[in-house]
Amino acid sequence: MCVLGLGLIGGSILRALGRTGRPAYGWNRSAAAVDDAGAAGFDASSDLAATLRRAEEGGHVVVVAVPVPALDGVLAAVAEHAPNAWLTDAVSVKGDVARRVAAAGLTGRYAGGHPMAGTAFSGWEATDAALFDGATWVVTADDETPADAWRLAASVGLDCGAAIVPAGSTEHDAAVARISHSVHVVAEAVAITAELDPAAKQLALSLAASSFRDVTRVAGTAPSLVNAMCEANAPALLDALDDTIAELRAARAELAERGTVGAITERGYAARRRYENARRTPFSPVLDGAGWQRALREAGHAGGVVTALD
Amino acid sequence: MCVLGLGLIGGSILRALGRTGRPAYGWNRSAAAVDDAGAAGFDASSDLAATLRRAEEGGHVVVVAVPVPALDGVLAAVAEHAPNAWLTDAVSVKGDVARRVAAAGLTGRYAGGHPMAGTAFSGWEATDAALFDGATWVVTADDETPADAWRLAASVGLDCGAAIVPAGSTEHDAAVARISHSVHVVAEAVAITAELDPAAKQLALSLAASSFRDVTRVAGTAPSLVNAMCEANAPALLDALDDTIAELRAARAELAERGTVGAITERGYAARRRYENARRTPFSPVLDGAGWQRALREAGHAGGVVTALD
Repeated sequence: MCVLGLGLIGGSILRALGRTGRPAYGWNRSAAAVDDAGAAGFDASSDLAATLRRAEEGGHVVVVAVPVPALDGVLAAVAEHAPNAWLTDAVSVKGDVARRVAAAGLTGRYAGGHPMAGTAFSGWEATDAALFDGATWVVTADDETPADAWRLAASVGLDCGAAIVPAGSTEHDAAVARISHSVHVVAEAVAITAELDPAAKQLALSLAASSFRDVTRVAGTAPSLVNAMCEANAPALLDALDDTIAELRAARAELAERGTVGAITERGYAARRRYENARRTPFSPVLDGAGWQRALREAGHAGGVVTALD
Repeated sequence: MCVLGLGLIGGSILRALGRTGRPAYGWNRSAAAVDDAGAAGFDASSDLAATLRRAEEGGHVVVVAVPVPALDGVLAAVAEHAPNAWLTDAVSVKGDVARRVAAAGLTGRYAGGHPMAGTAFSGWEATDAALFDGATWVVTADDETPADAWRLAASVGLDCGAAIVPAGSTEHDAAVARISHSVHVVAEAVAITAELDPAAKQLALSLAASSFRDVTRVAGTAPSLVNAMCEANAPALLDALDDTIAELRAARAELAERGTVGAITERGYAARRRYENARRTPFSPVLDGAGWQRALREAGHAGGVVTALD
C-alpha cells in the first residue's frame, strides 16, 4: 500500500498498516514529516513521482490523504505515474473528491474512502496506529465504482481496524454535513454566544460546566481544518444549517409566544434516543452482478457494516 | 440543615451534608423517596409543616430544592411555619425564585443558591454525596440580600464540597441562559437536524462519531427538566437564542456568498480558548459595610470564588 500525505490521517493509516505487517510506504510533501516517519521506522519519501512509479510497478493500492487544496496536483501525478494502480482516499467529503478524480481521468480505478475518526490535533506528531480501531470507515459505492476498487479500498479500512460502511457519495456528504460539519459550526456559535452579553461575559466563563464544555469541545479544532471540510461540502452544509436555524427559530417562537420549549425538547430527546439505540449489523457484501453498488448503498443505509471480506 | 425536596439535587445535598457529619434532615412530597432516604439511613419526613416547625424551633437553615412549579406552595409553608429560619434554594434560575420569595414575604431571610452540577438522571436513586465536589455553587448577592443569609447559604455549598461564586440574580440568569439553557436547546436542534434529510437519515445515525455524540449529549436530559429550567428563564434565554441564531445566519451567509466559514471558526476557536484558559481566584468575602453585595458581585464577575468562610 502507498499512502500519500502523512498528516494525522495518512500517517495513522501508515502506522496502522505497519501494525498488521502489511507492506506499506508513504510520501509527504514536507521533508520534516518524511524524516520523522523515517526515524520512527517507516518507509517514507518526499519524491512523489518515484513513489507513484513504485506503486504502479508493484501493483499497490494508492491511498490519497492530502488536504483538499492539494488534491488536484496529487491526482494529476497519479494519472501520470500510476494510472493503473487502484486508488482510494481518506478525505472527509466524497462528492467533491469524486469530481476531481473524474477530472483526472481516474474514475475507473477509484473507490472513495472516509475514516470517521480524528482528534483536535494534526500532523505526523499526532498520528496513532490505533486511531481507527472500532471506528466506521465509509467506502463509496457509486454506480460507476469498480468492484475491485471497492474491495481494495475496503481492505485498507479493515486492515486499519475499522468497520466499513458502504454509501453513495451524495448521501455521505448529506449525512456528514449533519453529524459533523454543521455540528462544528454550531459549536462555534455556542462558544461565541457565551461571551456576547457584556454584563455576564466573565461570569458565564466562570460558571460554565459540563454541558457547555461538551457542546463546545469541537470549537477547539484548528479553524483551518474546519474551514477545509466545510468549504468542500458547502451545498449539503447549507441545507443542514438551514434546518438547524429553522429549528432554533421555531423554539424561539414557541418560547416567546407560549412560554415553553416543549416541542423541541420532546423531539430532540427522541432523536437522541434513536441515535443511542442505532445498531450496526455486519453483512457480507456481494461485489458483482447488475446493481451491486445500489445493493451495497441500501445495506449501508440500513445500518449494515462490513467487518471482513472473503 | 433542613432540605426540602429529595430529588437529584436536594437528595445529593442531604447526602453531602451527611458525609461531613453536619446534622441534616429532609422532606419530600412523595412518600417513596422518603422511605428510600430513610432506608439509606437519612432523617426524612413527608410532613412539611412538622419539618418546617422543627427548622424554626432549632434555628436551622432551610434549603429549598423543589421544582419551580412546586415553589410557591413550599414558600407559603415556610412563611407560615418557619418565618424566622434562614432560607436558601438550589433552583437553576434566580430572578424568578427571588420574585417568588419576595411574594412570600421572605426576602429578609433569603440568599439564593445554584449548584452548577447535575446529571442526565433524576430522583433520589440518582443522588450522589460527591455530586458537588469541585463544582461551583452560585450564591446570590443582590442589594437586598442579608449578610447572615449569604453566609449561611454559602456554608451549605462549602459543606457540600463546592466553591462559591457570588453573583447578582440578573447576571446569573443571563450567564446560565448562555452556558446551559440555550446550550440544551441547541443540542436538541442538532439531534433533530441529523434526521431531517430523509435520504441520509439512517446513514447519519450510523456514521455519527464523537463530535455528534458530545454535542447532543444533553439532548438526552429528560424534556420535563429542560422545559422547567428554560421556561423559568425565558427572557434571558430568548436573548441568548437570538444571538446564536444570528451567528449561524451570518455563517450561513458567508458560506453561501463567499464559500467559507472562516469568520465563525476563527471567533469560535478564540472563544473556546478563552473558556479553557479562564481561571478562578479564591478570595475572602467581606460581608458588612455599605455596598458589600456589590463588591461581592464584582469579585464573582472577575473570576473570584469563595472556598472558605472565617
